[in-house]
Amino acid sequence: MAIRERVFNTIVNSFKRHGAETIDTPVFELKETLTGKYGEDSKLIYDLKDQGGELLSLRYDLTVPFARYLAMNKITNIKRYHIAKDFDIAGQYDPMIPDAECLKIVHEILSELDLGEFRIKVNDRRILDGMFAVCGVPDDKFRTICSTVDKLDKMSWEDVKNEMVNEKGLSEEAADQIGEYVSMQGGMDLAERLLQDQKMSQSKQACAGLTDMKLLFSYLQLFQVTDKVVFDLSLARGLDYYTGIIYEAVLTQAGAVPAPVGGEAQNGAPGAAEESVSVGSVAGGGRYDGLVGMFDPKGRKVPCVGVSIGIERVFSIMEQKAEASAEKVRTTEVQVMVASAQKNLLEERLKLTSELWNGGIKAEVMYKKNPKLLSQLQHCEDSGIPLVAILGEQELKDGVVKLRTVATREEVDVSRADLIEEIRKRTSEV
Amino acid sequence: MAIRERVFNTIVNSFKRHGAETIDTPVFELKETLTGKYGEDSKLIYDLKDQGGELLSLRYDLTVPFARYLAMNKITNIKRYHIAKDFDIAGQYDPMIPDAECLKIVHEILSELDLGEFRIKVNDRRILDGMFAVCGVPDDKFRTICSTVDKLDKMSWEDVKNEMVNEKGLSEEAADQIGEYVSMQGGMDLAERLLQDQKMSQSKQACAGLTDMKLLFSYLQLFQVTDKVVFDLSLARGLDYYTGIIYEAVLTQAGAVPAPVGGEAQNGAPGAAEESVSVGSVAGGGRYDGLVGMFDPKGRKVPCVGVSIGIERVFSIMEQKAEASAEKVRTTEVQVMVASAQKNLLEERLKLTSELWNGGIKAEVMYKKNPKLLSQLQHCEDSGIPLVAILGEQELKDGVVKLRTVATREEVDVSRADLIEEIRKRTSEV
Repeated sequence: MAIRERVFNTIVNSFKRHGAETIDTPVFELKETLTGKYGEDSKLIYDLKDQGGELLSLRYDLTVPFARYLAMNKITNIKRYHIAKDFDIAGQYDPMIPDAECLKIVHEILSELDLGEFRIKVNDRRILDGMFAVCGVPDDKFRTICSTVDKLDKMSWEDVKNEMVNEKGLSEEAADQIGEYVSMQGGMDLAERLLQDQKMSQSKQACAGLTDMKLLFSYLQLFQVTDKVVFDLSLARGLDYYTGIIYEAVLTQAGAVPAPVGGEAQNGAPGAAEESVSVGSVAGGGRYDGLVGMFDPKGRKVPCVGVSIGIERVFSIMEQKAEASAEKVRTTEVQVMVASAQKNLLEERLKLTSELWNGGIKAEVMYKKNPKLLSQLQHCEDSGIPLVAILGEQELKDGVVKLRTVATREEVDVSRADLIEEIRKRTSEV
Repeated sequence: MAIRERVFNTIVNSFKRHGAETIDTPVFELKETLTGKYGEDSKLIYDLKDQGGELLSLRYDLTVPFARYLAMNKITNIKRYHIAKDFDIAGQYDPMIPDAECLKIVHEILSELDLGEFRIKVNDRRILDGMFAVCGVPDDKFRTICSTVDKLDKMSWEDVKNEMVNEKGLSEEAADQIGEYVSMQGGMDLAERLLQDQKMSQSKQACAGLTDMKLLFSYLQLFQVTDKVVFDLSLARGLDYYTGIIYEAVLTQAGAVPAPVGGEAQNGAPGAAEESVSVGSVAGGGRYDGLVGMFDPKGRKVPCVGVSIGIERVFSIMEQKAEASAEKVRTTEVQVMVASAQKNLLEERLKLTSELWNGGIKAEVMYKKNPKLLSQLQHCEDSGIPLVAILGEQELKDGVVKLRTVATREEVDVSRADLIEEIRKRTSEV
């Protein structure tokens, strides 16, 4: 939990730095609210009948409930974050500026958490749809083929192609054409090249997506995050509600071949190279301009873009790291232990502890009448308390406290009046 | 949510000041875990059958799950808090020291939240049980009579007596004797007087409780919180699991007769005077030394004492207060808005904003290519952003930024290199 709190604080600080307010939505939604928003992931929704006989479902993500909330409350502009997980920007703005901010946030959080090397893959639903169209995928198969492409991070291209052709009835020729595109990775230059691509340039949708992709990269340059961002045509993301840019952050193992940055590269078998270096997605998101309108009685649209942090995955990575480093994780933030070497000083210890609490100091005292000094010091060692304030008859007479630094065993007499300030100074970096 | 966050922070800071670590327990528990722990409140438990056919229940409080957690993980010493709601100290310690710290915490939190006048009522299950015994309540009726006494804050003494006699079959004589005791309120002196009381002193249990009550008040004096704490024999608390001290904090309306402090008082009809001044309980807790043992296969006991904050009630009081004061509650913490008066400076605005984010400043920028200066300033007014960093051709040439204080409209040129430090200085109290 201490690690979790640290992770939480890092993430929330970033969300706040970007001016988001926090709102909450219920854990359960009416089943109908969630139905038809997730595509093939819908089967993962967990149903429940409430006492009143209404069909409820456990929320599957925070985006659909957020969209319902905006529609119900007629909100058209908001930046919000949900606990330490989701961040969204809603409102009609000039293209790609909020989208770029979302990517900046992912970059900030992953850098600050120090999880190791990472890469943020971006793509656009319009580019994907345009690509499907020019490759000869029938309109009504866009979503299901998209779901299959989404599996490229877990399956080989052969298996993906096999699913497209044999399960979803796509022609082998169309599948092969898709295979060529989804092996492409790059930056702004790839977007430029695809705008010139004979086939791709026939799709209006793809061109709109590619033009915005160029704009996005120009903003990402200003935000100085292009070192980690890759335009990757194999990124699909399964959820139905995305309408524009989509992205996903993956950790890349130490020593892995770094992602091609600025330039571009092609994997022989798309997804294969990816597979060997990726240890899984830790954040993702995208633009969902149609979702709020689905909940508004008059269908009024509110454009939205959001990012979701895979908080449980981040927690477990951080926990593994802490275990591996054998670094002792402090579970409390106690600054000082109030102790005594002599007997019958419980009341004096309690009085001093109370003074420290009243002064805002995080302080502990042993709940024993006459604890041994050694066991009091041992407790500090065990739980990482950096300072001990030791009281004795002589100190009480002199109006001082012996302040001991646990790590160095150094002791100094501090007058009672200066004690709070002194503790604050010595633990300011804690 | 902004108010909630402020309340949360105040409470969590207090919990941390007292050295607690945070642990979490699941929202659902096996039904059998919760069964038989709450007495007559059990009927409020909400059941649910999970997909696997196991009977689950929504947790009713955080104490029973905490006790199960200690038993399962074989933890014998811990101070923990659960989000911003519950704080517990588990372990075998000298009497009344952790109990006094819990009351100190309630005092701190209610003082810091500035909710208005409050009072903390304390009693002890052993004093209640001893009182029931000497008043002639049969052993097997202790718990059910205790539940009835617990209603004194909502019902008149006549109604409570009626329930005891006519519903629960107690003799009228016993009820009247209880009526005399439960009208008593006071401090350490009341505990002393009851230790001399002819009837009460016949109960070993009551004497143990009263002796500890005296000890408790001596520690509360050291913690300087006796101004708000009243030993009140009418306080019962319905839950079955308490074994020692119990307490409850109530807000008292402005202008209400202050609680008798240090001395003692008797209400003609117990509970009646209380009723007129109390606006409800905002915190409560007590000692539960038997609960962990119920979950341990070998029945090993872990003494515990805890406090629970009525967080929803606190939220709604704070929200009402904020509404009444018409004080505008800021929902974000943004320190500065990056703006420009001239056109075609989007890129420069984004670059500067990114610099500020990288420097840890909470900054916003409008997602428009060419927003009007007025609308940028208006947004600051509306959302309480205190500073605006204004860029123009001239400023860019001079390497400065015009820093405007929204409240005073004062503007100064600040060099780009000093900007972060300057913003930090000017918003340090935010």
